[in-house]
Amino acid sequence: MTEPTLNPESGFCRLKIDLAYDGTNFAGWAKQPDQRTVQEEIESAISRLVRNKTDSIVAGRTDAGVHATHQIIHVDVPEIGLEIENFGYLLNRFLAADIRINSVVEAPPNFHARFSAVNRQYIYKILDGGLQLPPLQRFDVATWFRPLEVEALNLASAQMLGYRDFAAFCKFREGSTTIRTLTKFQWHRDQSGYLIAEVVADAFCYSMVRNLVGAAVCVGEGRYPKEWMAQMLENKVRISDSYVFPSRGLTLTSVDYPPNEELLGRISLTLGKRDADF
Amino acid sequence: MTEPTLNPESGFCRLKIDLAYDGTNFAGWAKQPDQRTVQEEIESAISRLVRNKTDSIVAGRTDAGVHATHQIIHVDVPEIGLEIENFGYLLNRFLAADIRINSVVEAPPNFHARFSAVNRQYIYKILDGGLQLPPLQRFDVATWFRPLEVEALNLASAQMLGYRDFAAFCKFREGSTTIRTLTKFQWHRDQSGYLIAEVVADAFCYSMVRNLVGAAVCVGEGRYPKEWMAQMLENKVRISDSYVFPSRGLTLTSVDYPPNEELLGRISLTLGKRDADF
Repeated sequence: MTEPTLNPESGFCRLKIDLAYDGTNFAGWAKQPDQRTVQEEIESAISRLVRNKTDSIVAGRTDAGVHATHQIIHVDVPEIGLEIENFGYLLNRFLAADIRINSVVEAPPNFHARFSAVNRQYIYKILDGGLQLPPLQRFDVATWFRPLEVEALNLASAQMLGYRDFAAFCKFREGSTTIRTLTKFQWHRDQSGYLIAEVVADAFCYSMVRNLVGAAVCVGEGRYPKEWMAQMLENKVRISDSYVFPSRGLTLTSVDYPPNEELLGRISLTLGKRDADF
Repeated sequence: MTEPTLNPESGFCRLKIDLAYDGTNFAGWAKQPDQRTVQEEIESAISRLVRNKTDSIVAGRTDAGVHATHQIIHVDVPEIGLEIENFGYLLNRFLAADIRINSVVEAPPNFHARFSAVNRQYIYKILDGGLQLPPLQRFDVATWFRPLEVEALNLASAQMLGYRDFAAFCKFREGSTTIRTLTKFQWHRDQSGYLIAEVVADAFCYSMVRNLVGAAVCVGEGRYPKEWMAQMLENKVRISDSYVFPSRGLTLTSVDYPPNEELLGRISLTLGKRDADF
């Protein structure tokens, strides 16, 4: 892991950028050879605007097909007198219609998009009961053929809350911890009849929300009792891939940061946690 | 105008089909050479399923880029023992993801998708005030750079209600009447902050909703007083094309039919109206 640069180099200014994307036609956030990625396109646009090759640090590396309404990144750009208030407008002219900049501001001191973040918030949308999904909703809603009970989903999901090892719900990645603090995992049915899961944690490991949603659905449809999901968590053995829900239903909706004076402390805490011997 | 066939020929069964589409990648409903149209794709799918070349009659011929959540068509298919309850499922397997069948039922006697209809309902969605449209909403919401006042929109729009000549708000088409009965044209702001216009009439002429929306916006943003819109209606001179809103914000949401015993009477009424000397 590269040591994070806490503050920009001399002659550079750190920008905090809030952006949204439709993940449908991206191979995820992270740059990959010969793939269309959000990182590649956003860094190209910024580099073009500031006329300097620019790398970004992202709060939540979303997987292929996952969407975002408020992803956060930071970039360090040369202080060449460009007016920051025009950055969003200018970047949107360079970017394809499936990425949009919501806002660009100068980052406060010690702001680090990834390591200062205290929470990542996601939603997952499902249309259940075998109902026909309206075509315009097909990009960010998953479907399920059986009806789901909100109460059963919530009883199963509430058992997951807290500081826990989510090995059963994370795709294995060498060197990554699977210990996270899940602070919200709650379901409701919206006005249009869609099931919405709100999922909040300090951080998520790879594919974690889609695994948790898939396991909760097993309980929500009555296939397993809620104790099954608690047992899976306890066992720390990865659940079957067949339970995992598709990425298209998943959207990163918010990244939370502490007050400015706590940004530095938060970075130390994040890095300390990751080094801890779990 | 072809005389409508009131009932299917002997050996044929009339189906009422409720379907939805994302109009983004279609050159509208109506078949055109070398263009991708909803009519072409739906008739091909039905013809393939029933193994007989099938024409459809549609309730509302939507323009290029316009969407539908509940469009209604009828088709007469040979009685060859196919089970109607499986039609929707089978057709959806043939169709691209941007057209979906909601339901297929046997039509009641004297049902005609176009001439029995009493109302067409549309919604038009706008994000105003220069706000950044989230990428996943880009397919069915139009944007406007100035803020709009719901009350002003409603005051302007309410003046349009009734049995009137909408020549000022219809693109001219040889031989078409521009007289319609508008029964609802009402605006509200939804939970997400989008402006929604609900527009209901017995029928609409070409581009009418998009013209009406554009004119109402002129009042909603404070450029003109509401009397301006009433004057436009009165003048019967087509408003400037520059006011017309884009098709992507428009969705056909419902087509209303009378009770079964009134279907035949409604057809006579519709055809009588169109022949009347306005």
